[in-house]
Amino acid sequence: MKDLHFDYTKAVSSERVAAIRPTAEAAMNVLKSGNGAGNDFLGWLNLPHDIEAQISDIESTARLLREECEIIVCIGIGGSYLGAKAVNEALLNSFAQLEGSKPQIVYAGQNIGEDYLYELQNLLRNRKFSIISISKSGTTTEPALAFRLLKTQLEQQQGKDAAKRLIVCITDRKRGALRTLATQEGYKTYVIEDNIGGRFSVLSPVGLLPIACAGFDIRSLIEGAKRMQDICNLPFDENPALQYAASRNILYREEGKKVEMLVNFHPKLHYVSEWWKQLYGESEGKNGKGIFPASADFTTDLHSMGQYIQDGERHLMETVLSVEQPNHEVIFPHDEQNLDGLNFLAGKRVDEVNKMAELGTMLAHVDGGVPNMKFTLPCLNEYYLGQMIYMFEFACGISGYMLEVNPFNQPGVEAYKKNMFALLDKPGYEEESKAIRARL
Amino acid sequence: MKDLHFDYTKAVSSERVAAIRPTAEAAMNVLKSGNGAGNDFLGWLNLPHDIEAQISDIESTARLLREECEIIVCIGIGGSYLGAKAVNEALLNSFAQLEGSKPQIVYAGQNIGEDYLYELQNLLRNRKFSIISISKSGTTTEPALAFRLLKTQLEQQQGKDAAKRLIVCITDRKRGALRTLATQEGYKTYVIEDNIGGRFSVLSPVGLLPIACAGFDIRSLIEGAKRMQDICNLPFDENPALQYAASRNILYREEGKKVEMLVNFHPKLHYVSEWWKQLYGESEGKNGKGIFPASADFTTDLHSMGQYIQDGERHLMETVLSVEQPNHEVIFPHDEQNLDGLNFLAGKRVDEVNKMAELGTMLAHVDGGVPNMKFTLPCLNEYYLGQMIYMFEFACGISGYMLEVNPFNQPGVEAYKKNMFALLDKPGYEEESKAIRARL
Repeated sequence: MKDLHFDYTKAVSSERVAAIRPTAEAAMNVLKSGNGAGNDFLGWLNLPHDIEAQISDIESTARLLREECEIIVCIGIGGSYLGAKAVNEALLNSFAQLEGSKPQIVYAGQNIGEDYLYELQNLLRNRKFSIISISKSGTTTEPALAFRLLKTQLEQQQGKDAAKRLIVCITDRKRGALRTLATQEGYKTYVIEDNIGGRFSVLSPVGLLPIACAGFDIRSLIEGAKRMQDICNLPFDENPALQYAASRNILYREEGKKVEMLVNFHPKLHYVSEWWKQLYGESEGKNGKGIFPASADFTTDLHSMGQYIQDGERHLMETVLSVEQPNHEVIFPHDEQNLDGLNFLAGKRVDEVNKMAELGTMLAHVDGGVPNMKFTLPCLNEYYLGQMIYMFEFACGISGYMLEVNPFNQPGVEAYKKNMFALLDKPGYEEESKAIRARL
Repeated sequence: MKDLHFDYTKAVSSERVAAIRPTAEAAMNVLKSGNGAGNDFLGWLNLPHDIEAQISDIESTARLLREECEIIVCIGIGGSYLGAKAVNEALLNSFAQLEGSKPQIVYAGQNIGEDYLYELQNLLRNRKFSIISISKSGTTTEPALAFRLLKTQLEQQQGKDAAKRLIVCITDRKRGALRTLATQEGYKTYVIEDNIGGRFSVLSPVGLLPIACAGFDIRSLIEGAKRMQDICNLPFDENPALQYAASRNILYREEGKKVEMLVNFHPKLHYVSEWWKQLYGESEGKNGKGIFPASADFTTDLHSMGQYIQDGERHLMETVLSVEQPNHEVIFPHDEQNLDGLNFLAGKRVDEVNKMAELGTMLAHVDGGVPNMKFTLPCLNEYYLGQMIYMFEFACGISGYMLEVNPFNQPGVEAYKKNMFALLDKPGYEEESKAIRARL
């Protein structure tokens, strides 16, 4: 069986890769040995094996929710929803919402939009729904706010007792508001382990329950991750995570490529890029350092960002996510009149055109001075998404250590929260409230 | 009545603005007088007035399609769909597809996804749909390919004669494949004028017909644009377009801020950012120059890109799109137990929390070394979107001239297309095919 494949030959020379190889391997060894900064957050490293005991339980919870509900609302923000959303969007029918399949997965607690919450409450009125509430502390503002609103609505619509069976919490093992509430109400719960940070949590119940609820095969996802865990133990030449971390580090440090664009040629991978942006942006963007993670969906965005990539400021590197085989077949038809001049494509699969766009783009961008790296997924399914997820996580750990930052913390995320709490007069922020008012 | 408002005081000092003001005004005068590079593409400048005569006709076409169809498929790529999609997503219910309102607008021809087209064809089977095909030439690969596929399907489902009434083409006045086909088949058509480029076309039939088809008030959109056209004639201190162009130019040229993030605090503005990225990326990204346009949806992405923005590489500037008044009201409820500790928000509108997040974020990011500019829309409706669209377009023209590039061409977009055609053995590309094969 094929595996995820990586090609860096259009980005960096083999000499330069050979030169940086010892540094990359040293960073990997720090990661594996658990001797580096943030080493109390390495629970994701062996998660593909550690999680196996919980899979059956997660599957049976998902089955229950799928049978009973029209809509399953996943409440979470950042790492508490991006991984699940990335996998679900990659696997769902592009028009799942219009096709009306049941249950539908919707997301909440990932913003503070008053119109969004109003419209969501309207949608849920008179529909049977359930809630998966994902938050380590239970007090992160966005999800806590959404949970209080929707839990109230669910209890009003179903009665308090019936509602209890339709709420699942994924939270801390012992502490925090959500754990306390869940214990008191008797909600079904799953644990977010202390040693797994949000952006590394997709292969834990945080990601697996919403993915199973959408009807996808979480066993296969985990199988793929396990396979990649083995691959990440291979030597440099067979280890895509090590190669990726090394290549992008060369481009950033030696060539001033300060922006990395993750680009796909498959519209369903849009949210994989969003997940990747959190993983890399939050892990590396600190101490005035870090590659800026950006993304584009091609060929769509070749007609918006293409000009800039080809010919704008030369601070870009590009990483392509390519899917080798589509899941469906569309043959392009012949047309007698051929007014659009497309008969040269007649009889071909649409994906053949897409693949030539992909190859043509790579050649054009490299000519334009944008180094190109490329990951190839043999096809878009749970197994290869599992491989890809683990590979990106493992590469991110290496990459962070090569950059000499702690890849597992995120101190900068607190700054806006502190200001917000001060402005909202949250109890305990009296000093900060005074200070910020004086400043305005 | 209020207007769109701009604040640059958290980004650049008044002294520096005063110093660059003559340059900005000179660039504006080049734009207005039509003496600059690309001056054969200035048809959008007076479009809010020029388009008025066509509005009734566009409205009646939209009425017809809305009455007859469950689904309206808009075929176009880049500037041929981003403007309409931006306005429609900004105004539609967040869960419009799940609410099942009719008709639904779906987009095609904006990618070459075989799975996407397969699933779209499946969706349209046994449903009454119409097609709006938007392409100046009719031979751009993505939309031409989608149009041939879907036109064939429509004719099979409805019969050729009935299908004719359900196809509308927006294309060149005289030339090109789509014009020829439309004349031959007797399709209803609208004209893309020669002097209006794709990314400046949202206030032409290209944008207006799909927006009217989604049920929105295109008269009000145009009224807003007209009002902004007047504002763009005001002196510097009252002219947001001039101020925006000047401020971002200072940050790029004098402070090395090479990435601009357009960030919103309203999830419905996601596609406004996508439209803006094409507008600025394609207009400015040339000759090795240009600010890299990126975007984020807050507070969502504060939990992914927030760490980087706060504390990563210092090459960022930020432009906030703020909506003053939400369209709906949700009051945050009191909870006896208050386990989540959120009772300090009880009785407040959700948007008040959002606004404090916005203010808190601005203060935090400025403290972190990210200059902040801010546009305020009094509310999210057609009128203010019209103002915003015209303002961004006008500022883009000024900004491009300040950067000393031609803001109205996009030569770099051709590079990948040429390679793709060579790889696909398109007739007329025999030499290129030979050359590219030799290279592989």
